[in-house]
Amino acid sequence: MAEKSSPVFSRRLLLSSAGAGGAGLAVGALAHAAFGSQLEPAAKKVADVVDCHGQHQAGITTAAQDRMHIVGFDVVTEDRAKLVAMLKEWTAAIEAMTQGKEVGEGGAASGSYDAPPTDTGEAVGLSAANLTVTIGFGRSLFTDGKKSRFGLEGKLPEALIELPHFSGDMVEEERSHGDIVVQACANDPQVAVHAIRNLSRIGFGTVRVRWSQIGFGRTSKTTSDQQTPRNLFGFKDGTANILADDAEALDKHVWVGEGATDQPWMVGGTYMVARRIRMQIEVWDRAALREQENVVGRIKSTGAPLSGGEEFTAPDLAMAGSNGPIIPADSHVAMLHPSKHNGVQMLRRGFNYTDGSDGLGRLDAGLFFIAFVVDARTHFVPLQKAMSANDAMNEYLRHTSSGLYAVPPGITQGQYLGQQLFES
Amino acid sequence: MAEKSSPVFSRRLLLSSAGAGGAGLAVGALAHAAFGSQLEPAAKKVADVVDCHGQHQAGITTAAQDRMHIVGFDVVTEDRAKLVAMLKEWTAAIEAMTQGKEVGEGGAASGSYDAPPTDTGEAVGLSAANLTVTIGFGRSLFTDGKKSRFGLEGKLPEALIELPHFSGDMVEEERSHGDIVVQACANDPQVAVHAIRNLSRIGFGTVRVRWSQIGFGRTSKTTSDQQTPRNLFGFKDGTANILADDAEALDKHVWVGEGATDQPWMVGGTYMVARRIRMQIEVWDRAALREQENVVGRIKSTGAPLSGGEEFTAPDLAMAGSNGPIIPADSHVAMLHPSKHNGVQMLRRGFNYTDGSDGLGRLDAGLFFIAFVVDARTHFVPLQKAMSANDAMNEYLRHTSSGLYAVPPGITQGQYLGQQLFES
Repeated sequence: MAEKSSPVFSRRLLLSSAGAGGAGLAVGALAHAAFGSQLEPAAKKVADVVDCHGQHQAGITTAAQDRMHIVGFDVVTEDRAKLVAMLKEWTAAIEAMTQGKEVGEGGAASGSYDAPPTDTGEAVGLSAANLTVTIGFGRSLFTDGKKSRFGLEGKLPEALIELPHFSGDMVEEERSHGDIVVQACANDPQVAVHAIRNLSRIGFGTVRVRWSQIGFGRTSKTTSDQQTPRNLFGFKDGTANILADDAEALDKHVWVGEGATDQPWMVGGTYMVARRIRMQIEVWDRAALREQENVVGRIKSTGAPLSGGEEFTAPDLAMAGSNGPIIPADSHVAMLHPSKHNGVQMLRRGFNYTDGSDGLGRLDAGLFFIAFVVDARTHFVPLQKAMSANDAMNEYLRHTSSGLYAVPPGITQGQYLGQQLFES
Repeated sequence: MAEKSSPVFSRRLLLSSAGAGGAGLAVGALAHAAFGSQLEPAAKKVADVVDCHGQHQAGITTAAQDRMHIVGFDVVTEDRAKLVAMLKEWTAAIEAMTQGKEVGEGGAASGSYDAPPTDTGEAVGLSAANLTVTIGFGRSLFTDGKKSRFGLEGKLPEALIELPHFSGDMVEEERSHGDIVVQACANDPQVAVHAIRNLSRIGFGTVRVRWSQIGFGRTSKTTSDQQTPRNLFGFKDGTANILADDAEALDKHVWVGEGATDQPWMVGGTYMVARRIRMQIEVWDRAALREQENVVGRIKSTGAPLSGGEEFTAPDLAMAGSNGPIIPADSHVAMLHPSKHNGVQMLRRGFNYTDGSDGLGRLDAGLFFIAFVVDARTHFVPLQKAMSANDAMNEYLRHTSSGLYAVPPGITQGQYLGQQLFES
C-alpha cells in the first residue's frame, strides 16, 4: 500500500472547495491551497468561527447555536499532573476544532498508517458551524466529601454548593453532577458531537463519561437579533432573558466579580446550572389552550403576557381578571418574575431534547435547562424552590437530572482551560 | 379573559417576516398578509417545501435532509374504521405540515380556549424545512401470526417477510418492528419532531409509539449535487448509492413494478429496511488508520477505493497488494460490491445517531440504517448475510434493531396514505 497518497488536508480547505459547489472540486481546492488563506472562500468561512479566547469562555454570551452536546465526565485518575496534561491537550483540540480544523498534527488522515488518526474524521468537510466548547468543574472535582482531590485544598468556592433536593425532583444520580462538564454548541450537530467525541478520546484513561445529552433546538433568545424560539410546550421561551449586549446585567447577574467570590481564580467566571426537565408531553397536549396559557402566563401565539401588549411588554401582575389576577399568581411568569426575587435574573441558554420514547410509548422529551448565574444560592435556588412548591407548570414537568458547575474564566492564547484554578 | 386576541396565524406568514430580518417585524408580516402570497418572501419559502403528493411517497428519492425522526407505532385498536379514519387525519396533517402550515383549523392558537390547540405549536415561526413524511406497514399490521387483522386477508405481500436473524445480531424487540413506521425528515430537527409528535397526538387511542429514533446527520448522497457525507467512522458513506435521477436503477432496484408483486396495491411502492447499528466508537477510534482503511476498503480522506483513483472510481477488486488484493476481500467495499450480489443495489438513506452514553461511559452512537429496495429477499437479506458472516467491519458494529416495512405508493390530493391497501 506504499503507493497510497496520504494528503494532510484541513477542514477549512475542503470547506472552501465545497463552497465553490459542484463536482470537480479537487482542482479548486488545490488552487486555494496554493494561494493561501487570503482567497475569498477562506475569508468567508471565518464568519462561522467563534474565537475560543477571551476574558470569558465562549458558549455563554455567544449567540445561542441551534444544537448542543453536553457531557459530564468523572476523573478516573488521582494524578494531578495527568489531569492538567489532559486539560492542555483539550485546550489545543478546542482551539483547532473551533476554527474548523482537525485535531492533532495529522488529523483524520494521520501521517502514520500504523497509528489511529489524531482526529476521528466525521467533521471533515463541515464548517466550524459556530462551535463553542465551555468547561466547568463540579464540586466533586475538589473534594470526595472527606478530603481534597488533586491538591485543590482551599480552592473550592463557597458558591459551588450541593444543590438541594427540590419538591418533586426525580433526579437520577447517573444523569447528574460529575467532576467536569463540557458543553459543545454548534449550528451543526455533527460538529458538536465530533467535538465531544474527540475530547472523550483524548481523555481516555483520565476521564470517563458519566452522562451526556444531545439538544436539538435552543430555547432561549440570547442576542437582540435572535427571534425568541419555542420550547416543546409550543410557547416562546426566554423572552425575559439577559441579552449578550447587556453588559450591566451580565456583570450583575452572570460574571463573578472581584469582590463577589472567596476564590480569585473564579473572577471572570460564572456558574452553570444544568437540569434535564422532562415534559409530560402527552398530558400537556391534551390540556385546553386556556389552561396552557394560564400555566405559562403568556399568550401562546405571540408570547405577550396575559396582561396585554406584545411579547416584550412587561407583565402586569396586578391587573385584575375575572377571577383573581389576569396573570394567575401560580403561573410561570408570575412565579419567576424578577420582582418576586429581589430583581435577580439568569442567563438562560437551554435546549430542547427528545430521547425517543419510554417503555410506555410516551415521548421522552423536554428541556435541557442550562443557566449561567453569578451565584446559584441567590440566583437559582430561591427561584427553583418557589417554582417547585407552587408553579402550576410543575405539574407538567419532571426534573430528572441536576448539576452545578464552576465555569472558570476565559483564557488567552498559550494558556489552558482551568489554568487559573491549577496554577493560582 | 375575553379581551385576549386570538389571531389564527400561519407558520408561512411568520416565516416570511422572519426572513425579512431584525426587529419590528409585525408590520412587515401584516403587509405580506395584506398583499397575499405573490410577494417575494412567500415565494422564497416555497423553495423549502417538498410536495407530499405524487406517484411515489416523498422522503425516498427526495434529496436526503439533514435530520430525521422515525417512529414505529403499534395499532392498539382492532377497529378497521378507526384505523382508516386516523390515516385520513394523518394525511391531512402531513399535507399541512409539509407546506409549513399548522395542523388543524385553529392551529397552535386554536379558536376555542376550552379545547387543546389542534397544533402543538413548537414549529410556529419555522419554515417547512423540506419536511417529508413517509409511512410504511409492518407485517404485524396484516397478521398476528395466526389470523388476519383489519380485514387484510390476502393483502400481505409475499415480500413482506420476517427478516431472519443475522449472525451477531443483538436485536432488541422493543426497538424493532411495529405495525406502522413513520419517517419524518427535515432540515430542522424541531420540524421533524413536531411532525412525529402531532401524528402521535392525532393517533392517541389508535396507535401507540413502540420505538423512535432521532437521526442528526444524513449518511448518504442521494442526489448528484449532494456531497457525500461522513458517517461516525469518519468515512464518506453512500458513495455508490443509487441517485434520485437514475430512473433506470430506481425502476430496477427500488420501485415495485406491476410484474414484480403479488399485490397490486404495492405497485409504485417500495420496501424500507430500518436497522439501528451501534458503532463500537471507542474501539474504532483506537484502531490504526491502516486497519480502518482496510476494513472499509477506501481511503479515509478522499473516499477513493484502495485500488486508486478518486471517490467515484470503480473499485478494482482484483488489483494485487503486498499481501493479497489491495482491497481486502473482507473489506466492506469488497463484501457488498454489486458484482458479488447479481448486480443488486439499494437506495440507502440512513442517518447518524447519538443517544448519549451507555452505563459504561461509552458513546451510544452509530448509524440508523435505512434502505429502500424493491424486494428485501433479493436486495437486502443476501447482502446482510454476507456482511454479518465475513465483513471485517462487523467487528465494530452491533445491530440493535431491525424492521421491514411495505411502503405504499404515493397519493394524489383527495386520497389518503395507505388508501391503495384499504380500498383495493
